[in-house]
Amino acid sequence: MESFAKATAAFASGADTPRAFLERRLAAIDAREAGVLAFVARADVATTRALADAATARWKEGRPLSPLDGMPVGVKDVIETIDLPTEMGSPLYRGWRGDKDAASVKALREAGAIVLGKTVTTEFAASHPGPTRNPHDPARTPGGSSSGSAAGVAAGFFPMGLGTQVVGSIVRPASFCGVVGFKPTIGGLNRGGSHDYMSQSAQGVLAASLDDAWLSAYAIVSRVGGDPGFPGLSGPASPPAAQAPGTLIALETPGWQSASAGARAAFEAAAARLRAAGVTLLTRRDDAAIEEVERLFARCLPVTRDINAWESRWPLNTYMERDASKLSAAMRERYEETAHMTMDDYRALLVERAAIRAAYARLAALAPACVTLSATGPAPLGLESTGDPAFVVAGSMLGVPALNLPLLADEGLPLGLQMLGFEHGDADLFARAAWVVSAFA
Amino acid sequence: MESFAKATAAFASGADTPRAFLERRLAAIDAREAGVLAFVARADVATTRALADAATARWKEGRPLSPLDGMPVGVKDVIETIDLPTEMGSPLYRGWRGDKDAASVKALREAGAIVLGKTVTTEFAASHPGPTRNPHDPARTPGGSSSGSAAGVAAGFFPMGLGTQVVGSIVRPASFCGVVGFKPTIGGLNRGGSHDYMSQSAQGVLAASLDDAWLSAYAIVSRVGGDPGFPGLSGPASPPAAQAPGTLIALETPGWQSASAGARAAFEAAAARLRAAGVTLLTRRDDAAIEEVERLFARCLPVTRDINAWESRWPLNTYMERDASKLSAAMRERYEETAHMTMDDYRALLVERAAIRAAYARLAALAPACVTLSATGPAPLGLESTGDPAFVVAGSMLGVPALNLPLLADEGLPLGLQMLGFEHGDADLFARAAWVVSAFA
Repeated sequence: MESFAKATAAFASGADTPRAFLERRLAAIDAREAGVLAFVARADVATTRALADAATARWKEGRPLSPLDGMPVGVKDVIETIDLPTEMGSPLYRGWRGDKDAASVKALREAGAIVLGKTVTTEFAASHPGPTRNPHDPARTPGGSSSGSAAGVAAGFFPMGLGTQVVGSIVRPASFCGVVGFKPTIGGLNRGGSHDYMSQSAQGVLAASLDDAWLSAYAIVSRVGGDPGFPGLSGPASPPAAQAPGTLIALETPGWQSASAGARAAFEAAAARLRAAGVTLLTRRDDAAIEEVERLFARCLPVTRDINAWESRWPLNTYMERDASKLSAAMRERYEETAHMTMDDYRALLVERAAIRAAYARLAALAPACVTLSATGPAPLGLESTGDPAFVVAGSMLGVPALNLPLLADEGLPLGLQMLGFEHGDADLFARAAWVVSAFA
Repeated sequence: MESFAKATAAFASGADTPRAFLERRLAAIDAREAGVLAFVARADVATTRALADAATARWKEGRPLSPLDGMPVGVKDVIETIDLPTEMGSPLYRGWRGDKDAASVKALREAGAIVLGKTVTTEFAASHPGPTRNPHDPARTPGGSSSGSAAGVAAGFFPMGLGTQVVGSIVRPASFCGVVGFKPTIGGLNRGGSHDYMSQSAQGVLAASLDDAWLSAYAIVSRVGGDPGFPGLSGPASPPAAQAPGTLIALETPGWQSASAGARAAFEAAAARLRAAGVTLLTRRDDAAIEEVERLFARCLPVTRDINAWESRWPLNTYMERDASKLSAAMRERYEETAHMTMDDYRALLVERAAIRAAYARLAALAPACVTLSATGPAPLGLESTGDPAFVVAGSMLGVPALNLPLLADEGLPLGLQMLGFEHGDADLFARAAWVVSAFA
C-alpha cells in the first residue's frame, strides 16, 4: 500500500515518476491479483502506461493537471466507465455498457487519474458477495459491498478505489482490509452514472492515506459537484491540516454488544491513547444527549433496512421481470418484503430518520467528532458474508461524514477506528482524523 | 383526444372495452402519425392487442389491476423501457438500451397500462428540437421537451404520455398542444431510470383529462414512490373532487411582458370568468407578498439556467469526449458556459433558489393556488424553437406542482391556463383545478 499523494513530492525532480508508480502497481497486480480477485475487468495496460507517461511529462514540466495527475484508480463496478462494462455484480448485467463515464470517474480522469479497471462489488452493492478475498488472509472476506476497491488498495493495486455506501459498504471493507475509508456527507459527491439509487447512498473512496482520500474527493466535487441539489463536499483543495479535537465522543452504538473481546480491548487501548494525548472522551454516562443518541441508534439498522427495501422496489421489480432466477435469494427476499409496504410506511420512516438525525446533530455542541469501532472484530472467516454492519449503519443513516482509520488490530488482523463527523463538516473531520493518526504514529 | 378514465365506466358492461379503446388509438396513429411524428419507436402491435385483451377480460370479471388497467401510454424517450431503446433525442444514444423499465414505466405496467411506444424528446430533454409537429397545425412546434408525449395525447394516440420538466418541458407543450399537463411537486414521482438528472427536474404526465393525469401519477407513486428520500406525491387513490378555491392569486410572471395581445386578452377573459364564478383574484397590486414574489420571478430563468448548466457539466463532459460533433451547438454552448463556474457559484445559486421558494411559500397564507398563463401565445410557427419558457420556469424553479389546463385559445389555437400550487399540495391543486375546469364548462 503506497500513497500517491506522498509519492508526488518526488515527481518534479524525476526521482520518482507516475510511470514508475504505475509499474509498481502493475507488479503488485501481477504478483497478487490471482489470489485477491479485486478486478472484474481491467483497462488496457498499454493505454494506462501511455497515460502515465503523459502525466510523468507534465509533472516534470511543473504543470500537472492536478495533485492526482497520474494516480492509478479502481472503480467499483456499479459505477459506469466509458471504456469498460458495468456489471453491478449481477449476471443480469453481464457485459452491459452505459457508454459514458460516471460523474466521479470523468472528474478523476479530468484530474489526470488513470482507471486501471472495474472492481468487484456485491450484487447491486447489497449483501450477496463477489469472489474477492481479503489480502491479509485469503480465507476471509474483504467486506462489502465495495470489496474489490478495498482489497485492491490493501494489496497495493491502486492507492484509491471508488466505493459507495448505503449501510456500511465503504467503512466496513476498509476496516477489514486495513485501509482508509471515507463516506462523505450525504450528497457530497455526484452519484451520476452510479447505480446506487437509495437516499442514504453516498459515493466515497477507499484509499492508502487520508491525503489520497481527500484529494480524490476534492477532485470529484470541484469538477462535477455533489448530487444535484445538494451543496456538495465543502473544504479546501489541499488536505486539511491536523487539528487537535480537544474533546471527542466515544460512542458504543449497537455494535458494542456483539464486538469481540479483542475488538473491545483494542478500542479501550485506543481510548487510553487518546486520553494520554490530551483528548477528553465523553460517553453516554457523561451527557443525556449522548445517552439519547445511543438509545436511538438501536433503530438505525431496522429503519435503514426498511427504507432501503422500499427504495429498492424499483429497480428490483423490473429485474424480477427480466429473470428472477438471476437474482440472489437475499435480493428476492428484499423485494418480497416490500409487497406489504406502502408510501405511508415509507413516509413514517423518513420522519423517524429525520428525528434521529436531529438528535445526533445536537451532539455537535459537545465535541467536533465521535469515535467508535468500524467493525465488531476482524474480517470473518469465509466469503459468504461481508460482515456485521452494527458499527457502520449509523453513519449511513445519519448522512454524516464517516472515516475508517486503519489504526487498530484484532487477532493480528486489521481493525478500524471509525470517526463520525457532522453534516457538511467533512473537512473538519479530516483535520481531527489527521491529528488522531499522528497520535497513533 | 379521449379520456381513459371516462371510458372505463363502460368496461364492466362490455359496452366498451380496453381492446376497443386501443383500436381507436391505433386507428388515430394510422391516420395521423405520418404527419405528427410523435413516436421514436413503436411497441409490437400484436403484443399491445394481447395486453388489451387481457385487460378487457379483467374488467369484465370486475377485477381490473387498477383504474388504469388497459390504458395505452406513451413514454418520453429519456425514460427507459425494457423492450425498446432509449435514445434521448441524441445520435450519441442511437439504439442504446438500459435493459430495464424506468420506475414510472414499471409502475404503470404493474397497474395494467400498455406502452405503445417511445415518444420524441428534444436532445437530452433540453432545447434542440426533434421532428414532432403540432397536431393543431403541422407548421408549428408542439413545444418541448416532452414533444411527442404532448402531441401524441393531442392527436388521440394515447390518453397519457410520460414527460419530464426542468424548465417548462411539460406545461409548455401541454399548452401548445391543448392537453392537460401535470408537473408534480419536486421529488413527487420516482425518476429512477429517467435520464434527467437535474435538481429541478420532475417526472410528470401529459394527459387527456385531469382524471387521467391524477390516476397515472397515483399509480406511479403508490407502486414505486417518489424520488428516493422525498415523501413523494401525496393524495387519494381517486381523483380529488372539485373544490371552490374562494381566492386565487393571479400572477403576471416575467411572461406577461412578452405575451401576445391575444394571450393577454384570453387571460383577462378567464379572470373575468373566474370572478363571475365567485373567485376573488389577488394580484401584485393587492399584497406586498405577491409583489415581492413577482419581483423575485425575474430571477427564475437566470437562476434555473445557471443551476442547470452546472448540473449538466456531467454528463456533458463525457458526451463531449465520446463525440462532440454529435451534440447540438446549444448543448456545446451550455457545456462551455460551465468552464468558469465553481462549486461556490453553484452553492450561491442554491441559496438564492431557496430564498425565492421561501418567499413563494408565504403566498399559501393568501390563497390555495395561483393562476397565470402557460405560454406567451399559441405554438410558434416553425420547428426550430420549442417556445418561450417565461411563464413556465417559475413552477420548475419553485419545485411546486404545476398544471396546464387547456381552457384558452389564441389565434384559434390552444393556449393553457396554468395553475401553480404549493409544495406537497398536489391533490389540493387538482381539486381547485377541477373546479376551475367546471367553471369553464
